[in-house]
Amino acid sequence: MNPNTTWEIPARAKREGINSAIPSNWTIPNPASEQTDLTGDYIRSFLTDREIEVTETDAVGITEKTCSGEWTAVEVTGAFCKRAGIAHRLVNCLHEVFFDAAVEDARRLDAYFAQYGKPIGPLHGLPVSLKDQFHVKGVETTMGYVGWIGTFEGNPNDARRCVVESQLVRELRSLGAILYCKTSVPMTLMSGETANNIIGYVPNPKNTNLSAGGSSGGEAALIALRGSPCGFGTDIGGSIRSPAGWNGIFGLRPSAGRVSYQGAANSMDGQNTILSVVGPMATTARSLTLLFKGVLSQEPWLHDPLVVELPWRSDVESELQGMIERSRGGRSELAFGIMHHDGLVRPHPPADRAMRMVEQTLKRLGHKVIEWNPPSHRTAIDIAAETFSMDGGHDVRHQLGLSGEPPVPNILVKKGEQMTASEIAALNVKKREYQKQYMDYWNSTAASTGTGRPVDGVICPLGVQAATIPGKYNHVGYTTFLSALDYTGIAIPVTCADKRVDVPRVDMDFLNDADREIQSQYDAEAYDGGPVGVQLFGRRFQEEKMLMLAEYMSAEIEKDFKE
Amino acid sequence: MNPNTTWEIPARAKREGINSAIPSNWTIPNPASEQTDLTGDYIRSFLTDREIEVTETDAVGITEKTCSGEWTAVEVTGAFCKRAGIAHRLVNCLHEVFFDAAVEDARRLDAYFAQYGKPIGPLHGLPVSLKDQFHVKGVETTMGYVGWIGTFEGNPNDARRCVVESQLVRELRSLGAILYCKTSVPMTLMSGETANNIIGYVPNPKNTNLSAGGSSGGEAALIALRGSPCGFGTDIGGSIRSPAGWNGIFGLRPSAGRVSYQGAANSMDGQNTILSVVGPMATTARSLTLLFKGVLSQEPWLHDPLVVELPWRSDVESELQGMIERSRGGRSELAFGIMHHDGLVRPHPPADRAMRMVEQTLKRLGHKVIEWNPPSHRTAIDIAAETFSMDGGHDVRHQLGLSGEPPVPNILVKKGEQMTASEIAALNVKKREYQKQYMDYWNSTAASTGTGRPVDGVICPLGVQAATIPGKYNHVGYTTFLSALDYTGIAIPVTCADKRVDVPRVDMDFLNDADREIQSQYDAEAYDGGPVGVQLFGRRFQEEKMLMLAEYMSAEIEKDFKE
Repeated sequence: MNPNTTWEIPARAKREGINSAIPSNWTIPNPASEQTDLTGDYIRSFLTDREIEVTETDAVGITEKTCSGEWTAVEVTGAFCKRAGIAHRLVNCLHEVFFDAAVEDARRLDAYFAQYGKPIGPLHGLPVSLKDQFHVKGVETTMGYVGWIGTFEGNPNDARRCVVESQLVRELRSLGAILYCKTSVPMTLMSGETANNIIGYVPNPKNTNLSAGGSSGGEAALIALRGSPCGFGTDIGGSIRSPAGWNGIFGLRPSAGRVSYQGAANSMDGQNTILSVVGPMATTARSLTLLFKGVLSQEPWLHDPLVVELPWRSDVESELQGMIERSRGGRSELAFGIMHHDGLVRPHPPADRAMRMVEQTLKRLGHKVIEWNPPSHRTAIDIAAETFSMDGGHDVRHQLGLSGEPPVPNILVKKGEQMTASEIAALNVKKREYQKQYMDYWNSTAASTGTGRPVDGVICPLGVQAATIPGKYNHVGYTTFLSALDYTGIAIPVTCADKRVDVPRVDMDFLNDADREIQSQYDAEAYDGGPVGVQLFGRRFQEEKMLMLAEYMSAEIEKDFKE
Repeated sequence: MNPNTTWEIPARAKREGINSAIPSNWTIPNPASEQTDLTGDYIRSFLTDREIEVTETDAVGITEKTCSGEWTAVEVTGAFCKRAGIAHRLVNCLHEVFFDAAVEDARRLDAYFAQYGKPIGPLHGLPVSLKDQFHVKGVETTMGYVGWIGTFEGNPNDARRCVVESQLVRELRSLGAILYCKTSVPMTLMSGETANNIIGYVPNPKNTNLSAGGSSGGEAALIALRGSPCGFGTDIGGSIRSPAGWNGIFGLRPSAGRVSYQGAANSMDGQNTILSVVGPMATTARSLTLLFKGVLSQEPWLHDPLVVELPWRSDVESELQGMIERSRGGRSELAFGIMHHDGLVRPHPPADRAMRMVEQTLKRLGHKVIEWNPPSHRTAIDIAAETFSMDGGHDVRHQLGLSGEPPVPNILVKKGEQMTASEIAALNVKKREYQKQYMDYWNSTAASTGTGRPVDGVICPLGVQAATIPGKYNHVGYTTFLSALDYTGIAIPVTCADKRVDVPRVDMDFLNDADREIQSQYDAEAYDGGPVGVQLFGRRFQEEKMLMLAEYMSAEIEKDFKE
């Protein structure tokens, strides 16, 4: 970056502000260049045993301790602030750091517990990180744009700056959660990697030669380093699921209308063909449930006009639990679809292996697994591509223009025509028709599952790559199709790329030129160590069911493959 | 109409086809010009006592008889076909007549009952009429466009013509309903009156100098004449509620995403800022519940990607019933908002009187009634107006151009610019912000109801006029604001304009020039006899609650004011 350009001055000041908000006694040496895995023992080396114990407990485990008074909110908060600060030094995963306010909040929670002998809510004392789209009192939101520094969403004269809070933030506070940092995003949010002119590039904590993914890449990297037990990202085409998969964590993309987006910043706000959605990310599946169930308990439909009045459905939860219990007892009542590839681009060997591992587990459990042959995902991907460029780049050019900053590499800034109302209407009809075809296909599987019902869930890759080589994330279809359908999807971590077993395939039967090209980019050495997961998905609004299945499946996968 | 123009040839043929599908032995003399009320004794004079008994039973009453075997489906169907045929001769309320198929279906239902001793479903043998947007096997859909005659939605080569059925139609058949006719609509659907170049103008059955309303005007007029016990219309800005009010019947505008629109024709399909919704219309409130609950039991969310998985919520029903029982016992637990006018245009004396009647009943019941002072409805009306002209008239011009037919009077065909993606996005944001303000206002009433909750429902006029003088329906705001909010609204019939009591007000404090102008159009003589209702509304997705309240309120209003 050239320090003489105008936009670089506020960018540098902001960057330095973030860094200086992290206590300097947590400063750590720069990792040696051969130290590409910063997780596990590496980051642990800067922490006390107690800090390690606290920060490597999942969100459910933490709330068990904080809600019973075994751990104080102050201790938990302190441990996560420290680990988050170190994580930021390692991978640039933070945009906002407000540890002092967090400790202050933790003190209040501890005082409450001391006085009343009970937690303030089910997330009492749980640190929750947030993607830098959510507004928190006293804290800025830049969303990766230099032009937003010192403003409210780009407007320097808007009194809401550092004053208002997003609906989700209000809900989290009311549940007793501790907010302490906001995580980095790519400018525009429309990227599968996380980079901007303020904090630079977010590498993958498991292999720093690879990407942390995006757009919830700061969030995913922070959680991967256990600088946060859980947090919230957003997803319009894979922005929760893809970085979750690439960081070995769990992430839920709920259908639009379940988790509140009210009062959060966004890209291309008001585009309503495919909605961006808010969802939880965490180190365990049960932690996703904790957060999702928690925010629903706040009745967000009374405060956000786009949220549907769908409380957590305990009846669905119990029904699934019954089926799962009976399945574990050897009487499978569940059936799954499996799609090893989308017919457009095959997954690289690590992602392919993750799929086969999951298939093996499902079969070991006695579940019927059928091949998933849906209406072409090409249609869904085209619909999404048209949607995302609907305004011809108008919003993005405006935001970049505020400061004059250039786009970072791999952010494509369109200079196209705006779509007209009639074109958008035709696109909406096309999307609805595709959704209907997919729905009919889903229903049709009732004939082949043997359960009398259609499949209970479908497994497919999260993408072609294990965490990608920067600049090489060139087929986003595996997550995007689900956004066009508005289906519920969960990223489930499975394994890591391993150069010893994930060797390039020979004599491949390529699907097409794009497949040939993308397969040729597989490099066993380069991808080694990159996490890889799978995607579990269900119909629209199937969050309860998918969360229960994710908990079940991840536990069973671990049984089969835990090293 | 000039019979020499090309478009008039198919229009006339279609018109004659409709008329000739009605058995000629039901032909009736043209009413004398002074016979402006065609309901009640007038239409009864063409029917047998038994036919009158059957057709003046409401949908719930009918299904009680048909489901117990007391009445046969054939008899019920026959009676309604006859009365519908006569109704059409009187007010042009039908677009499609398929009585023979209906009787055939009724025979099958009777055979089923004879064989199994039970009904095929909860709507066994119930005739249900449909606005001419729904596709029924063997029957055309013209939606008021000459250019759609002989085509599928304007496409002459689409094999779906007369073959496919809309999802709603499949649901109704599965419930045991009898489909027998489709009802007239204004071309474009974007009109508060019902007229097109095929069947002409639909006058109001209670006063033929007035309008039946629109766009579900044929449906409302048919039900008002008891040619149908119940049916389904659609509503994007008042098209169910306004004609329901003007015809002394009930009509429900559910929130978008509850009743399936899948596979139905529409205007400006794909516009998704304010969605048109499907809802029931009927002679009693409990019949709305029967239909609404019935179609939900078919799990439309498994067949329509835009339907939300919200089954009928019996818990809400029971809770409300408990409150209503206790209220009837003298312990009111309910509170209502009341908005006598929207601050833009006051209702004419008949509509104003209807509001005061309802207020009197609510107060007699001991309910807290608070003045409703929401965020300006002007904003909502502007948002709706922008939305409805988003495509600059593109769709409507295309449909009219198929045949070259001219627009009928009072249909404004825009020749404007198309809105761009960015403009539409800004409009969507504006709408969401308005919805949020309204929601916050709603919540704020918890402080003044005395129940600890916000108001349970709000009452406001359905419009300025009792059923309007043709061409004078010039303030649609009373229904449109609710569409912009996507709230649940129900038209409840209250009374009829009465020249003896509804005298023009003197010394009026006009709100503005529009109000002055519209008030000056009130003519006690001309409006005499025109039905007038009120609108009960609740938040988004409050159909269960609003239906229960509508049943309760209408019964109590009847107690107070039954002549």
